[in-house]
This record gives sequence, C-alpha cells and structure tokens, in this order.
Amino acid sequence: MTDIFAFTLKATDGAARRGAFTTPHGSVQTPAFMPVGTQATVKGLYPEAVAETGAEIVLGNTYHLMLRPGPERIAALGGLHSFMNWGKPILTDSGGFQVMSLSSLRKLTEHAVTFRSHLDGTMFELSPERSIEIQALLGADISMQMDECLKLPAERAEIQRAMELSLRWAERSRRAFEARSAKGYALFGIVQGGDDIALRQQSARELVGIGFEGYAVGGLAVGEPQDVMLKVVAETTPALPSDRPRYLMGVGTPHDILEAVKRGIDMFDCVMPTRNGRHGAAFTRFGSINLGNARHADDPRPLDEQSAHPAARNYSRAYLHHLTKANEILGQVLLSTINIAYYQALMAGMRDAIAAGQFEDYYAATMAGWKGGDIPALS
Amino acid sequence: MTDIFAFTLKATDGAARRGAFTTPHGSVQTPAFMPVGTQATVKGLYPEAVAETGAEIVLGNTYHLMLRPGPERIAALGGLHSFMNWGKPILTDSGGFQVMSLSSLRKLTEHAVTFRSHLDGTMFELSPERSIEIQALLGADISMQMDECLKLPAERAEIQRAMELSLRWAERSRRAFEARSAKGYALFGIVQGGDDIALRQQSARELVGIGFEGYAVGGLAVGEPQDVMLKVVAETTPALPSDRPRYLMGVGTPHDILEAVKRGIDMFDCVMPTRNGRHGAAFTRFGSINLGNARHADDPRPLDEQSAHPAARNYSRAYLHHLTKANEILGQVLLSTINIAYYQALMAGMRDAIAAGQFEDYYAATMAGWKGGDIPALS
Repeated sequence: MTDIFAFTLKATDGAARRGAFTTPHGSVQTPAFMPVGTQATVKGLYPEAVAETGAEIVLGNTYHLMLRPGPERIAALGGLHSFMNWGKPILTDSGGFQVMSLSSLRKLTEHAVTFRSHLDGTMFELSPERSIEIQALLGADISMQMDECLKLPAERAEIQRAMELSLRWAERSRRAFEARSAKGYALFGIVQGGDDIALRQQSARELVGIGFEGYAVGGLAVGEPQDVMLKVVAETTPALPSDRPRYLMGVGTPHDILEAVKRGIDMFDCVMPTRNGRHGAAFTRFGSINLGNARHADDPRPLDEQSAHPAARNYSRAYLHHLTKANEILGQVLLSTINIAYYQALMAGMRDAIAAGQFEDYYAATMAGWKGGDIPALS
Repeated sequence: MTDIFAFTLKATDGAARRGAFTTPHGSVQTPAFMPVGTQATVKGLYPEAVAETGAEIVLGNTYHLMLRPGPERIAALGGLHSFMNWGKPILTDSGGFQVMSLSSLRKLTEHAVTFRSHLDGTMFELSPERSIEIQALLGADISMQMDECLKLPAERAEIQRAMELSLRWAERSRRAFEARSAKGYALFGIVQGGDDIALRQQSARELVGIGFEGYAVGGLAVGEPQDVMLKVVAETTPALPSDRPRYLMGVGTPHDILEAVKRGIDMFDCVMPTRNGRHGAAFTRFGSINLGNARHADDPRPLDEQSAHPAARNYSRAYLHHLTKANEILGQVLLSTINIAYYQALMAGMRDAIAAGQFEDYYAATMAGWKGGDIPALS
C-alpha cells in the first residue's frame, strides 16, 4: 500500500518511454498492455493464467458491472479484486463509452446520461459523480473520468461541444474523486477533440490545469484511419506532462501499439487478443494467423516453438485448427491466452529496447517478423 | 510400456472392488472415472487441468473423431495422445453408439452400419473391423468392440436380436484386434441384453468365451429407471471374471456411480460433469448445486472450502452465479473442472474405503452429505 500513486520515468528513446507506476495493489511496468475483463473476467482465462502471460493490470468495465452484478453487490463481497480473485491492479473505465455503444434510449444532458440496460431494459442514470462512486465501490486502483466519446468522422462543432462537455465532467469527476480521498488511488483525465489537433491540445492543456494522476487519449480507434489516430497521438502526447502515465484507450492491434509507443504512449487496453482468439485468430511474432484456414489442418508445428508461453509451444497448428473448426472451448481459451501472452511479450520487448536505447531496431525487427502471417498485420 | 494389459484386484469389500490396470501410457487406479474428451478435448479443460483433477484416463469418441479431423490425419500427426497433448491412457468407444444417436440415414446390416455425418452429410461406413482400425489409428490404450445399443424399453425379441448381433461383432472385433497385435493394448467386450437378465447373462458368458482384456456393461443409462440399471448391473457382474476390469458405459450421476461400485463395477465415463458444468450446475459433497439460482447472488462462500481442488475453494458462489448468468467461458471452465475434480474425489474416497474395508460407512456418509444441495441428488 502506497500513499501516493507514483509514476517513474526510467528511460526514453525518442518519444518512446520506459517507466513504472505503483498502485495499492502493486506496480506496473510501462509500456503496459491491460487485458480487458469486461464482466469481471478476462474472457476464457483463469486470473492465474492472466498473470502468467505477464499482465500486471487488467481493465474492468463499469457499464457492464453496474448492470450485472451491480457495484453495491461487488462492494459488499469485498470489491472487484476479491470478487474476481485478481490481486493485482485494476483500472476501470467510466462507463460512458459503453453507454453510448451498447445501451438504447440514451438521453444525454449536462448532468448525466440516462439509458436502458441492454440486458433487461432497466433504466439507469450515469453521471460523472455516480461513475466515480461506482469505480470506488469496485475498488479500482485507477479510475477514469466520465467523458463523451464521439464516433469519427464528426463535425468540428460537434467535436468541440463533446470535448468541452468532457472537460466540465472532468472537473466534476475530480471533485467527486477528491471527496473519496483514498490514498494511492488514481484518477485519469481523458483528452478528447476528435481528429482536430487544436481541440486536442486545448483539451490536454485544460485537463493538466485540473490535474490528474494520469492522462488518457480517448475518442480514437472509433472508425478513423490508423494514420489519423497516430497523428493525433503524436500531436497530443507533447502537451501532456512527462511525469504522468499516458493511456491510449481501446487500442489496438500489435502494430497500433508499436506505433503508439513510438509516439509516447505508456498504457493500452483492447479486446482484440481475446475476441479474435475466440474466433480462431492468433497474434504471433510472425503476424496474425487464422487457425480456421484449412492449410493448418495437417501442420504438426506449434504456433511458435520459441514462445515463452507453453500454450504457444505445446499444441500443433493442426490441433488448434481442429479445435477452432469444432468450436471447442479449449480452442478459444488457448488462442485467447496465446494472444494475451504475445501482447505481453511485445510490451516486454519494447520495454527492454527502450531501456537499451534500441527501440528503432526493435521496431524494425518486429515489423519484419509480422510479414510471416496470412492476414495483413499492418492494417 | 508393458507387454501385457494387466489388471490387479487389490481388495474387495462386499461386491465393491479396489484394483488397478496398466496400459502402454501408464497405470489407472480403480474404481476409476474417465472424463469424456469427445472431440479430442475434455470440454473446457487444458489436459494438465484434467490430470490435476486426479483423472488418470480419458475417453475419446470414435464417431466424432472419424468425422473430424479423421483418424488417418490424427495418426499422421502422431496419434490422439500427441494430438491432444495428453500422455496418460485413453479409452476409445467403438463409434457404434453415437452413430445410432447422432447421425441420420442409418442403415444397419450384418456387415456394418452406413450413415450420414451430422456435420456435413458425408456418407460413412462403420464395421467392427473399421472401428478397430480407427481405434488403432487413434492409438487407444483400450479399444471397445462395436455393438448395437438399443434404447429402453424395447421388445425382448429386438433386445435378443441386437445382443446376438453384438456377439457376432464381438468375435469379428476380436479377430481384427488380434491382427493388429500391439502388445499391452486392450480390447473390451460389451455385454448387451437390455433389461433382460437371462439375455445379459448369456451375453456375458459368450463374451467370456471369446476372451477380452476387460468387459463393459453397455446399453444402460438409455432411458431406463435407475433401479432397473442397478439390477442389471448386480446380476451381470457375477457372470464376469474377477480378474478383468468391468466398465459401466456412459454412467452417470455420482449416486449412480456409488451404487454401481457397490455392485462390482470398476470403470465409468459420463459427460455429466462437463455438460452440467457448462449449464451452471456443480456436483459437490453437499449434492448438486444450481449456480444459476438467485439465492447464490450474494453468497461469499466458496462451493467447498475443504475441497482439495483450488477451483472449488478460490471463487465465491456469488462469483460463480455471476459468471453463469453472464454466460462467461470462465464459469463453464470452473464448473466443469470443479465437477470432474469432485468425481475424482468421489472415486478416490471409494478406493480408500474399499481398501480399508469401510465401503458401507463411506457409502452412508456420502449419501448423507448429498442431502445439502438444492437439486435432488439421488435421482
């Protein structure tokens, strides 16, 4: 238990950063990838298996948990760490993004958003204050401010309106979080502004003025091309303080992550390793491999005999193909695990390379390796 | 690697037997429960996890594997043990039962059964000789003769016809197996005869005349009441040689197994621990517990804090309820694992009790314990 959420910048290589932060449930080395535990479980993995991939922090989804089983219930059961038997750090999102993408009958006001649960139609209200309260009930080590996240492309005036609302919600979130006053816990602000660089930089400046333990870049990976996303990242990170972690929300492919680390991002989350794994796709150092493809049916080779993770070494591509075609749970579990382990290996590789001042070499070697798959990895 | 499939009877207590047999892939203590690995995987479990429940042998389904991925393919990949990364013994069924229950357009002749795959409509033929060939391609430690298994109730003449056909197929299976002549591997004959005790005893006698490394009681758990099943078992086992293992196919609930061990059975297989686990039901020493029931939603207790298996100790009933309601893979995995572990604990308890001459005490204590669940365990 630490009294202060502390981020240490250990090394830089160009804009890429090697660091670490400390939370009440332990430390996290950055750049870090956070597997997504939507409904209090990283889909298909025992919590021990999540840790064995090298993951040091997972993400929980406030929207899903507020609907089921409910934050008051989780609090009564000892909090989310205890509930899901995961003793390491947890970051929770604010719920705002998934209210917008999953619920129906939404009504957005200055005060809050009201919506109908996608599960059973129950009406809920989510305000910046209630979001902070829920994240406190869950016991999140890192909470996120509630924001409004638009899909891109969008009109500049609409982007500006949502960005400014998000700033007012940032202030309210900060006040609510201060009232909670739990030592060592963190609240991150979220930079909005769509693909408009001036709005992004204004958002970043004003958030820094409010003051947060970390800063996220939100509202990306919502339909824009990769080059637009990377340009926004590259032009936003310089406006953020170097002594706080930077989190690119909801991103992405291994290539997205490699490029974003190069541009100064420290933290990531994405459902791709588990979602794609459940659908038969493996992420490897040879690129993405579609195990459903018949060309794997007789292939006795493992996915990667040099992988540090046994799941990538102990089963043939033929067997993974069979499990995928037969829609077996074990296939979903193996590929989800292999994928998270690959993401973690990628993060560890970047951390070592930055510390050694060899990020560009690592970048080039990684990009060259990905050309071995059967799905374009560089999308 | 042993040259001879050896069964050792270590102790008896009433009709209950404590023994062990040795196969090319290791030894199995009996009474034994074999988790079912239908499609080259025990649904939801890593092979290491299967072993950690205490299971020493798994069952593979010839019907499913002949359709997909195909026995010649598995053989080319090194056999079923290697394919599914399971180094311990495997018993395979003959395929006959599932041809009857799953395929369409079946045509049964003296020679063979032809049928249409339930996956893609391809026509297949399965004869006693082809069944033995497939099981050899898979590398099964224990193969089963092909038989005809009727649903009960059935007319006596029909039961007799199927039993007599099964005896002729037993002879053909034995000849085909001898031609394979792999040392240490075993072929089991299957007693048929429905609920007719005279036919059962005739079947047993004639099978013993042919000679097998073990004997199964087939054609039960196919719709008949439990008391009918147990009566057939009780009247059949005395007709089988005491120096060969006895296998009650497709059975059953923990209570079925307890009663059948009491009547001299050594081996079991059943999909219930995994199938029921995938649907939210746990087997425990307190009986069967339906985790989908709302009364578990706030219950912080684990399923069984005294269980030897961590899956039954490390997660609250509230969490298992949540995973079940949310249809999460981890819920299916945990309950499948917990259930197989409970079955294995039950078998271990019976083995110890028989060896100590205390089977009746163990039986009474186990029956008393099951009264704690919320589903009638003694069905």
